Amino acid sequence: MTFKFNNVYINETATITGPYESNGPLGKYFDLCHKDLYFGEKNFEEAEIHLINEAINTLLKKSKMDITSVDAFIGGDLLNQIVASNYAMMKVNKSFIGIYSACSTATLGLILGGALIDGGFLNKVIAFTSSHNAAAEKQYRYPVEYGGPKPKTTTFTSTGGVAALLSKDAGNIKIESGTIGEVVSSGVKDVFNMGAVMAKAAADTIYKHLQDTGRDISYYDLVLTGDLGVYGMKIFREYMLSEYNIKLKNYNDTGVMLYDIENQPVYAGASGPACAPLVTYGYIFDKMRKGKYKKVLLAATGALMSPTMVNHKLSIPSTCHAVSLEVIS
Amino acid sequence: MTFKFNNVYINETATITGPYESNGPLGKYFDLCHKDLYFGEKNFEEAEIHLINEAINTLLKKSKMDITSVDAFIGGDLLNQIVASNYAMMKVNKSFIGIYSACSTATLGLILGGALIDGGFLNKVIAFTSSHNAAAEKQYRYPVEYGGPKPKTTTFTSTGGVAALLSKDAGNIKIESGTIGEVVSSGVKDVFNMGAVMAKAAADTIYKHLQDTGRDISYYDLVLTGDLGVYGMKIFREYMLSEYNIKLKNYNDTGVMLYDIENQPVYAGASGPACAPLVTYGYIFDKMRKGKYKKVLLAATGALMSPTMVNHKLSIPSTCHAVSLEVIS
Repeated sequence: MTFKFNNVYINETATITGPYESNGPLGKYFDLCHKDLYFGEKNFEEAEIHLINEAINTLLKKSKMDITSVDAFIGGDLLNQIVASNYAMMKVNKSFIGIYSACSTATLGLILGGALIDGGFLNKVIAFTSSHNAAAEKQYRYPVEYGGPKPKTTTFTSTGGVAALLSKDAGNIKIESGTIGEVVSSGVKDVFNMGAVMAKAAADTIYKHLQDTGRDISYYDLVLTGDLGVYGMKIFREYMLSEYNIKLKNYNDTGVMLYDIENQPVYAGASGPACAPLVTYGYIFDKMRKGKYKKVLLAATGALMSPTMVNHKLSIPSTCHAVSLEVIS
Repeated sequence: MTFKFNNVYINETATITGPYESNGPLGKYFDLCHKDLYFGEKNFEEAEIHLINEAINTLLKKSKMDITSVDAFIGGDLLNQIVASNYAMMKVNKSFIGIYSACSTATLGLILGGALIDGGFLNKVIAFTSSHNAAAEKQYRYPVEYGGPKPKTTTFTSTGGVAALLSKDAGNIKIESGTIGEVVSSGVKDVFNMGAVMAKAAADTIYKHLQDTGRDISYYDLVLTGDLGVYGMKIFREYMLSEYNIKLKNYNDTGVMLYDIENQPVYAGASGPACAPLVTYGYIFDKMRKGKYKKVLLAATGALMSPTMVNHKLSIPSTCHAVSLEVIS
C-alpha cells in the first residue's frame, strides 16, 4: 500500500550517536557524538532513553522551535515494550503514537507522520527512533560482557537517537510518497544472519513501491536499503534480479555505510532502528542538499525477531517500509 | 490531540475468547469461545497468534468479504516485539502497521485507522489486538505454574482476539472522534496495581478530549474506561472529581465488566489489550444497536510496564487513548 503525499516535508533532523558511530566514516555528519555507551546514565536502557530525549532537544534547538508547537510524536525502538520511547515520552507531555517495526521503525514513522499531516490532522510532528548496542545485545542475544564469539554474518546494533521534524511547510527534504510493507516469512531461523532474514522483505516492498507508482528503478538516483549488511546486500541484489528482473545500479545499504567494516569490530555491518536514519539524515541529506542526489528511495528493513519464538524454533518474520525522498531546490 | 472524523465507521467486529471470558457474564456476546488456553497450538504464544488469525477470519466471514478487499491492517499486542501480531500478519500478506500501547492498543488502532481512512489514504482497514493470560503472565510476572499468591489489586490478563473492520461506508457504529493520549508518569512502581498506574492517564485523556471537543461529560450516555479494575476505578473517580471537578454518573470500567469478580479468580478484574474491545465490540455495541446508548466514550488505558525498568526501580508509565463512538440509526 503506497501513500502519495501532496505536501509533507522533513524540515529538520537531529542525529546523536555513540563512540562506534562517531569513529566510523560518517562521524562528522552527526550532530552529537558521545564517547561512551552510558551518556551519564546508570544503565544501558536509561542511556537509550537519554539518546531519544537528547535527539528531540537537539532537533528543537536546530529548528529554533519550542516543544509547545509540536502536535504529536511518533516513535519506537528495539527494546521490549518500546520502553526507551515510552520513558522518553514521559518527559515530553505530548500525544504519542508508539510503533513497533524493529529496524524499519524510522520509515514507518515518516509514512504515518506524513499521512497525518497530509490528511490534515496534524501540523507539526516529530518522528523519532533509537537503538543502543549494549541494551539490544543484552535483550536479544547475550550480555556483551560474555564475549561470546559470533559468526561473520552477524550485524552490530548501532547506538543512536534520531529525530525528524515533519510539517507541510516546504523546506529541506520532501517526503513524496511512502510504501507500507507486509510481514514476510523469511524461512530463516538464524539470529546471527539478519541480512538473510530481511532481504526478501526489502525486495518485495521496493517492487510494490515501483508497481504502485508506475516507476522504473532508474527513477531514483539512489536506492538505499537498511540494514542488510554485507551478506544481506548480496542476497537482496540477487533476489531482485532473479525474482523481479531488476538490476540495481545506484544502490547502497545503510548497514554497510555506517561503519568502516574492515577496521571496526562490526562483523557484517550496522543494524538497529537508528542505522537507516543516522546514515540518511546525517550523510545522505547533506549530499542531497549539495546536489549529488535528487531522488532517493529509502527502504528500511526490520527483522521482527523474538528470542521466545526463536526458542519455539519458528522462522523469523521481517518487513520493510520505503519512503521516496526528494530535495527541495 | 483530538482528531475529528467526517466519515469513519466500524462496519463489523469479531470477538474470540478463552474459557474465563466465556464463563463470565458477557460470554454470550462473543462470537467464539474456546474451552482451553491452547486453541490446538503447542504453546501460549502460538495460541495468541491463533486468536488473532481466527478473529480476522471470523470478521471477514461476518462481513461477507474477501481479504483482497482489505487495504491494510493495524494492530499490536502485549508480547515482546508484538510477536502475536507480527506472526499473525505473516499469514495475511497485507500492509501492516504495528503499534505498541499495551492495553490501550485497540483505541490507538481505531484512531490511526480512522485518520488514514478519513485522510483518503485507505478504504478498508482491519484494526486488531489480542492478549493471552498465560503468555502475558509468563512474560511479565511468573509462569502460572508457579502458583505464587498475588495481592487483591492485581488484574487478570484477559484472553482474546479482537478485530474491527473500518471504512468510510456508513453502517453500524461511527467513530466520531479520537484523542491520542500522552505518556504519563504514575509514580507507582507496584506491578500488582495496574489500576493505580493507569487512573491518572485515563483522567487526563478524558479531560483533554472534553476540552478539545468543547463538551461536557454529560454529552456521553456512557463513559467507559478499560481496564482499571475495581481499585483503579475508585482512584479514577476521585481523581476526576478532585483534579478536574468532573463527577462521573454514567460510568463503567471494562475491566470490571468482563468477569464475575465475586465468583471468578480474577482479583480486581480484567486487563490486557483484548479487554476493552471485547467488552465494547461484544456487549456495548449490542446495547447501542438496541438503543440503550447512543454516544459512548471509550477510554482504553495502557500500563507501559517493563520488567527490566521495574528492576531498575523506575515508576511505570501509562497512557490512554479515547474514541467517541455513536450508533448509526
